[in-house]
Amino acid sequence: MKLPGQEESDISSASENVPTGELDSGPGSGLSPDGPLDTDSRELEVPKDPPLFIQLNELLGWPHAPEWKETGRWVLFEEKLEVGAGRWSTPHVPTMALPSLQKLRSLLAKGLVLLDCPALSLQELTEQVTRVESLSPELRGKLKALLLQRPQHLIQTPCTSPCWGSAHPREASQEEEAPLKEQHQNPLRQKFAAGAEAGAVLAGQLGFLEQPLGVFVRLRDPVVLGPLIEVPLPSRFFCLLLGPPTLGRGYHEMGRAVAILLSDLQFQWRVRRASSLHDLLAALDAFLEEVTVLPPGRWDPTARIPPPKCLPSEHKRLPSQLRVAKGPSVRRRTSAEDRHGRRQHAANPELRRTGRLFGGLVQDVRRKASWYPSDFLDALHPQCFSAVLYIYLATITNAITFGGLLGEATDGAQGVLESFLGTAVTGAAFCLIAGQPLTILSSTGPVLVFERLLFSFSRDHSLDYLPFRLWVGIWVAIFCLVLVATEASVLVRYFTRFTEEGFCALISLIFIYDAVGKMLTLTHAYPIQRPGSPTYGCLCQYPDPGGNESQWTSTNPKDRDDILSMDLGLVNASLLPPPECAQRGGHPRGPGCHTCHLDFCGRELALGLGPCLQMGKGAEGGGGGLNLTECPLGGQVRKMLGDFSSVLAILLGCGLDAFLGLATPKLMVPREFKPTLPGRGWLVSPFGANPWWLSVAAALPALLLSILIFMDQQITGVILNRAEYRLRKGAGFHLDLFCVAVLMPFTSALGLPWYVSATVISLAHMDSLRRESRACAPGEAPSFLGIREQRLTGLAVFILTGISIFLAPILKFIPMPLLYGIFLYMGVTAISSIQFTKRVQLLLIPAKHQPDLLFLRHVPLSRVHLFTAIQLACLGLLWIIKSTPAAIIFPIMLLGLVGVRKALEWVFSPQELLWLDELMPEKERSIPEKGVEPEYSFSGSDSEDVSSWRTGQGFGREVISRSLTEV
Amino acid sequence: MKLPGQEESDISSASENVPTGELDSGPGSGLSPDGPLDTDSRELEVPKDPPLFIQLNELLGWPHAPEWKETGRWVLFEEKLEVGAGRWSTPHVPTMALPSLQKLRSLLAKGLVLLDCPALSLQELTEQVTRVESLSPELRGKLKALLLQRPQHLIQTPCTSPCWGSAHPREASQEEEAPLKEQHQNPLRQKFAAGAEAGAVLAGQLGFLEQPLGVFVRLRDPVVLGPLIEVPLPSRFFCLLLGPPTLGRGYHEMGRAVAILLSDLQFQWRVRRASSLHDLLAALDAFLEEVTVLPPGRWDPTARIPPPKCLPSEHKRLPSQLRVAKGPSVRRRTSAEDRHGRRQHAANPELRRTGRLFGGLVQDVRRKASWYPSDFLDALHPQCFSAVLYIYLATITNAITFGGLLGEATDGAQGVLESFLGTAVTGAAFCLIAGQPLTILSSTGPVLVFERLLFSFSRDHSLDYLPFRLWVGIWVAIFCLVLVATEASVLVRYFTRFTEEGFCALISLIFIYDAVGKMLTLTHAYPIQRPGSPTYGCLCQYPDPGGNESQWTSTNPKDRDDILSMDLGLVNASLLPPPECAQRGGHPRGPGCHTCHLDFCGRELALGLGPCLQMGKGAEGGGGGLNLTECPLGGQVRKMLGDFSSVLAILLGCGLDAFLGLATPKLMVPREFKPTLPGRGWLVSPFGANPWWLSVAAALPALLLSILIFMDQQITGVILNRAEYRLRKGAGFHLDLFCVAVLMPFTSALGLPWYVSATVISLAHMDSLRRESRACAPGEAPSFLGIREQRLTGLAVFILTGISIFLAPILKFIPMPLLYGIFLYMGVTAISSIQFTKRVQLLLIPAKHQPDLLFLRHVPLSRVHLFTAIQLACLGLLWIIKSTPAAIIFPIMLLGLVGVRKALEWVFSPQELLWLDELMPEKERSIPEKGVEPEYSFSGSDSEDVSSWRTGQGFGREVISRSLTEV
Repeated sequence: MKLPGQEESDISSASENVPTGELDSGPGSGLSPDGPLDTDSRELEVPKDPPLFIQLNELLGWPHAPEWKETGRWVLFEEKLEVGAGRWSTPHVPTMALPSLQKLRSLLAKGLVLLDCPALSLQELTEQVTRVESLSPELRGKLKALLLQRPQHLIQTPCTSPCWGSAHPREASQEEEAPLKEQHQNPLRQKFAAGAEAGAVLAGQLGFLEQPLGVFVRLRDPVVLGPLIEVPLPSRFFCLLLGPPTLGRGYHEMGRAVAILLSDLQFQWRVRRASSLHDLLAALDAFLEEVTVLPPGRWDPTARIPPPKCLPSEHKRLPSQLRVAKGPSVRRRTSAEDRHGRRQHAANPELRRTGRLFGGLVQDVRRKASWYPSDFLDALHPQCFSAVLYIYLATITNAITFGGLLGEATDGAQGVLESFLGTAVTGAAFCLIAGQPLTILSSTGPVLVFERLLFSFSRDHSLDYLPFRLWVGIWVAIFCLVLVATEASVLVRYFTRFTEEGFCALISLIFIYDAVGKMLTLTHAYPIQRPGSPTYGCLCQYPDPGGNESQWTSTNPKDRDDILSMDLGLVNASLLPPPECAQRGGHPRGPGCHTCHLDFCGRELALGLGPCLQMGKGAEGGGGGLNLTECPLGGQVRKMLGDFSSVLAILLGCGLDAFLGLATPKLMVPREFKPTLPGRGWLVSPFGANPWWLSVAAALPALLLSILIFMDQQITGVILNRAEYRLRKGAGFHLDLFCVAVLMPFTSALGLPWYVSATVISLAHMDSLRRESRACAPGEAPSFLGIREQRLTGLAVFILTGISIFLAPILKFIPMPLLYGIFLYMGVTAISSIQFTKRVQLLLIPAKHQPDLLFLRHVPLSRVHLFTAIQLACLGLLWIIKSTPAAIIFPIMLLGLVGVRKALEWVFSPQELLWLDELMPEKERSIPEKGVEPEYSFSGSDSEDVSSWRTGQGFGREVISRSLTEV
Repeated sequence: MKLPGQEESDISSASENVPTGELDSGPGSGLSPDGPLDTDSRELEVPKDPPLFIQLNELLGWPHAPEWKETGRWVLFEEKLEVGAGRWSTPHVPTMALPSLQKLRSLLAKGLVLLDCPALSLQELTEQVTRVESLSPELRGKLKALLLQRPQHLIQTPCTSPCWGSAHPREASQEEEAPLKEQHQNPLRQKFAAGAEAGAVLAGQLGFLEQPLGVFVRLRDPVVLGPLIEVPLPSRFFCLLLGPPTLGRGYHEMGRAVAILLSDLQFQWRVRRASSLHDLLAALDAFLEEVTVLPPGRWDPTARIPPPKCLPSEHKRLPSQLRVAKGPSVRRRTSAEDRHGRRQHAANPELRRTGRLFGGLVQDVRRKASWYPSDFLDALHPQCFSAVLYIYLATITNAITFGGLLGEATDGAQGVLESFLGTAVTGAAFCLIAGQPLTILSSTGPVLVFERLLFSFSRDHSLDYLPFRLWVGIWVAIFCLVLVATEASVLVRYFTRFTEEGFCALISLIFIYDAVGKMLTLTHAYPIQRPGSPTYGCLCQYPDPGGNESQWTSTNPKDRDDILSMDLGLVNASLLPPPECAQRGGHPRGPGCHTCHLDFCGRELALGLGPCLQMGKGAEGGGGGLNLTECPLGGQVRKMLGDFSSVLAILLGCGLDAFLGLATPKLMVPREFKPTLPGRGWLVSPFGANPWWLSVAAALPALLLSILIFMDQQITGVILNRAEYRLRKGAGFHLDLFCVAVLMPFTSALGLPWYVSATVISLAHMDSLRRESRACAPGEAPSFLGIREQRLTGLAVFILTGISIFLAPILKFIPMPLLYGIFLYMGVTAISSIQFTKRVQLLLIPAKHQPDLLFLRHVPLSRVHLFTAIQLACLGLLWIIKSTPAAIIFPIMLLGLVGVRKALEWVFSPQELLWLDELMPEKERSIPEKGVEPEYSFSGSDSEDVSSWRTGQGFGREVISRSLTEV
């Protein structure tokens, strides 16, 4: 089994620089993927044994033609041989009947147990295991011959027909001990890292035996036992379960039981250290202590259970030796972490106040400097290329949309070109120096609203807008620097999930609203092409009674953008499809006559993009569930396709659009490099026509804007630096705010838009940089390893954005509906990933049919609804304020969210808030640890469904697991 | 717990006439829903004990304020009290740790076991159970007082906030023994039929006990134990598990273990009959023998498993007493039936040749006559009303579509009116006398193709069509009567799944193709309304230079149907939205100016209907999974809505259409009652202009048509009479064919279309008449009880169809897209329910991600693909033949399907055919029983996933379960 770390290092040697985590996660953790929050539980010295591949060879065909056939195999989950179909079953959770285990126990108790057997070959091993008193020499010989017989393996290569490992099993002689060619060629072998071991279980009915024969061998040194195992791995364990046919399928079931036992990490750990039969049986008993029992009649014992998404942590079931030493404290810690995981930033040294001026900033710079080289080396992975394209397209869409909106809002004082330029310059600068370089800067909705208000104020009072704006920018920079100096960013600890989710929902809704609105506008303006529909395209022109055709005026394609003033002014033109028109003596005329005449390509292309992209993203998970996009390709190719799914979806959309020649609007990039406002140079004059005191008065709006920027920037920062993303390089709240502050006067001076971190695009950026383990045991879900934290993708995105100003000829092939589709997808992804959305859904679902969410088990439904209603009210209020002239107080209202949350402490008990939100810093301190764990003493079910609790919390994890299951 | 049978009889007293099945399914079967095929296993005397409600009362708050609280309850599945949330969890499969069971066993072994305890009240019972030697009299008193303390129940009423059963638990005195008001008002009580019993488990830590105390009581006569149980059911079992706090949660877990044991039917059966402690422990051991064990580390023991869709049959795990007597043979039979269930018709007496002329027909008539009265009484259920509306709409759509096609094909010799008349008359006649009155007659696609060929032949040879057709009809009747006389219908045994699915796929594809084609035609002809789009609707007319407006010609609304000749011939008209038009001095003109200007209502209405209907059907299941349509309504209301979902969808569609005033085409019913061909009377003259010998020559095409009709009729018959529908009244293949034969000359003489059974509509008819159990234990899926077999729904449908000829004013409100939506839905439902579709999907899914279908476990993938490819090729060939002039040989090709299937026996082994198809009659006989069960001796996994096999087979079942899960 390849280790997650090893697999990574094949591809990027840069990960050798990684100082912590990941690479020291040995095989133990490779086989026991913990939840995303157990990162620090690695400190524990959990036993790390080599991974074990267990194979069950069954003796079939006795007495006529006895032969060994591999009928089952295990790493984590069980794969059964479907004999008739000649294929391996899908991996599933192994289940067994209790009597098999009990029979196995009694068979081993009176059987032969060899621990640290020194055999060096199958021949020697056979010699050892047949030294049983009950066997006569003759039987011993027969048994030995049988054991040396070459077994049949079904070797399944991907995408080719399966072949039987041993075509002529009967020809095998005793001498054949070397591994076979097929064994070496077995593709399964690549899944195992060096050091992996095998366990062989041989079971079956053997007519000449009078008593059941049970042998369990642990080899001192693992040895490749010839062709016994389908993969040429050295075997550590060997188990023989043979007997007279009285038991029937019993031996098969006992063999499965041994294999299931050996595939259990705890049992394996004990047996590797066992020194006697007693230890072996004790290990079995310890296993029995922990099994889960399903009652008959309520569960079909033959049902195959698919592997669970989230395996229980092995740390929770340490061997009792360890448990006595460290157990209780460890268990308490993990249990507490499960619930408090997200709050790690509270105790985070990054957010501890140093008490010195700019102390936090200095700390941030110091910490980030040590990672700086790796920030570039870590980007050497093909996945980053895909991420760049995806985020690049999102960024330019954003730049165009917000640029257009800004142009509208400021009557052309700023526009698309400023938006492009500003995005490129500030984004690139931020990526180079910021604390969290995964952040994508953007002129976000709230800031845009503020700018619109500022413009109408200056227009109403006949002020020179850009100079006024310059002073606002300068003041904002000063205020923000004060916030940096006073380490105000430590206050982000007060941004609980309530605040984060409220803000995130608001931003996502703005995204969705804008995307849908834009699409609708397009549908109105560019209606679908249809023969005979002349709004845009093809008309049938009849000769004028006077024979004069010149009266007919066509739509000029260059007027396309001016869509609302389109007026055809038809004269003598009719609406027939081109062929009929010609038939009747007319001339089909117009730009649409030869373009697509399909009925539903246009709009459906636009509307269908969301799901399409989502489908693409689903494949990115890398072979988890059943994906529609999964074609019969090798895993590597599929993984590649998954990495580039978003790009493929975009290219496919562009290709389809071009191929069908749809009359969709295309991405329009300004062609000339000059400010949008005619007549102004790039630099804004500091005063212009304004009185001097306006530079001081600008401090007032700047104060509001500072609050807005602080909230916007830091909430995004908190969301991006969540513990569940397992960021190794830490956050840099002070440094980020410092960067934003420094960029403010710069953008103001050039008349560019103002920029802060954009929640939705940054989240999409992180999502596209997820690292997941690839080589895993059959049936095991790929585990999340972290994010490719680096500065290069962001930098590349913004360099490309800068270049785009000059790329108009290429970019004009990108249809706008496609870009709005990306917007819509990002918005929907973000909003559907938050717990708030789940709780809103709960409002509509009758109690009986509600999903089994963990907080529903602990908080009365009415309280949950009350919490949701308050949040909804806040959101509605924010949306209304945003849309009215009162928008100027929006920043304060945003700050008010924190106040509302604080006030909730009067309405809800700390327990309820702990389940629905999280605790605020000082409140947490004031509650004793025992009080924080609700009903611990009573129900004891705290740890139940920790997995659902975890996934219920996270933005990104939930998104991915959701797209995996939904596609 | 109400019995399925009882629940039915409340509603329809007619079911008292039911001779077999259903009503004799006692409580035992009510609690152990068998698969649809185990009908005859009821012959077995499975122990039928009253259903048991088990409640766990836990002692909490010791030592400060000890009180009993109900924390768990069981009928089939477990419901846990979510203490913090104050609600019951969703029902789930109970799981437990093995040690709890073992500890329970040892506690009971040394505890007090009272079997047939004569206590008549809680007081007496308390007296009895405290008579334990280890207790001092003082402790005994304390314990008694504690036991008499009133427990707290959480009584959850639907849609109101939950209340605690006992508001003042501390006030309870020893005297209070009568059940409380809350207990009687508990809505849970309605779920239990008379005779249901309860089991009370009391568990907890009790500080003053020095040793654990285990008491198990079986009461001789069940007694209502005061307020002990939340529902005032008489208690049969009482179990007390108390002890010092050393074990901690152990008592709770042991209590759960007892409850889980008692909820197991087998354990319950044994304990009810136990006469000693030894029997009790033996029952526990027998339970342990059967439990399924999940290994730790591969499964989170705290995960809650949702109730499986299909519970394992209790018949497979009869108590060993029974098993010795009847076990093996029974088990073999059920196992064989699982696989051969569908082939019951092979051994069906209905399909046994009598050897007498018309022997089969006579038998059919005799059998059907005995059911005749019930065929009308069984229809007295509101569900039938919904079915009538649904099928009526499908039928008139069919009549219009096929009528229109027929009119096209015969150049107006026949038309929509003939179609309506013929459908009504033949359909009603068939429903009155046929063997399978659930069948809906229709002029199906293949017959229509034949008619088109016949017409072009007679046109090419200048024959008088209708007289020629009359003779063809007469000959077909003669041939079909010969087929009836010779009992040819027994040959339907050769129609294996290969033939059925090929035919069904073909018909479904024709449905889908027609529905989509019609919708596309409509979209072309009636484009979406949009301001400025004048193809259909509103134009801006400018005054002519000469001021003359008369040049403008509007579309005449009455020309709407003549959609292809629509020509606006615009003069001086432009394409502005009405307000702008008026602004510019023009006049908005045209029928569309004041209709809907929404952009996407029209087409989306049509296209969205399928999913909408499907959603509606999903709710029909009655509260299974999480349905989108499920609003917070009571179960009864929801069930009602489910029954009428299709009607609601149609009404909603009509209402929306009317409300938005969409310009959709409406259902047009002919207004005058006269033959479509002008100048002919209703009766066709026998010779017309044709030579006399043509009446003899007509025998040749009649032969082909007879084959077609035989195939079409009988394949549909086989599909409708599948065993999985559990039809009680049997099929009537001979009688059905006889009816079709008799109707042939009649329709031919009146110039009406020819009619045979329509597969897709008939299946939809049956689906809308499914009976399912309503009252079931929490978490139990409603079980399929059968079909409401009666003649009234069909009759009503065709009477309504006949009336429709005169209903033009009402029917004109039904938009055609809605009707095509119904068509599309029926086609998609039918085609997605067949195994063939699954196998076609398999062609596209890589092996690793294929679903775990049972046949894939037993047949190599390449063989599966080969089988699918052959079937696909046959289907393609049939489609091509249908579409070309060679269509005349289509009937023979259809017959060829059976030949191809026969030839497959040379390519595939019987085992493979058994898994993929089924065996043909004589082949089956030639294979010994052992050979037919593939790898029985080897893998022993025959019974694995019988459920998936079952659902993989059926049309209807699969459809329903699919719509339940997908919605």
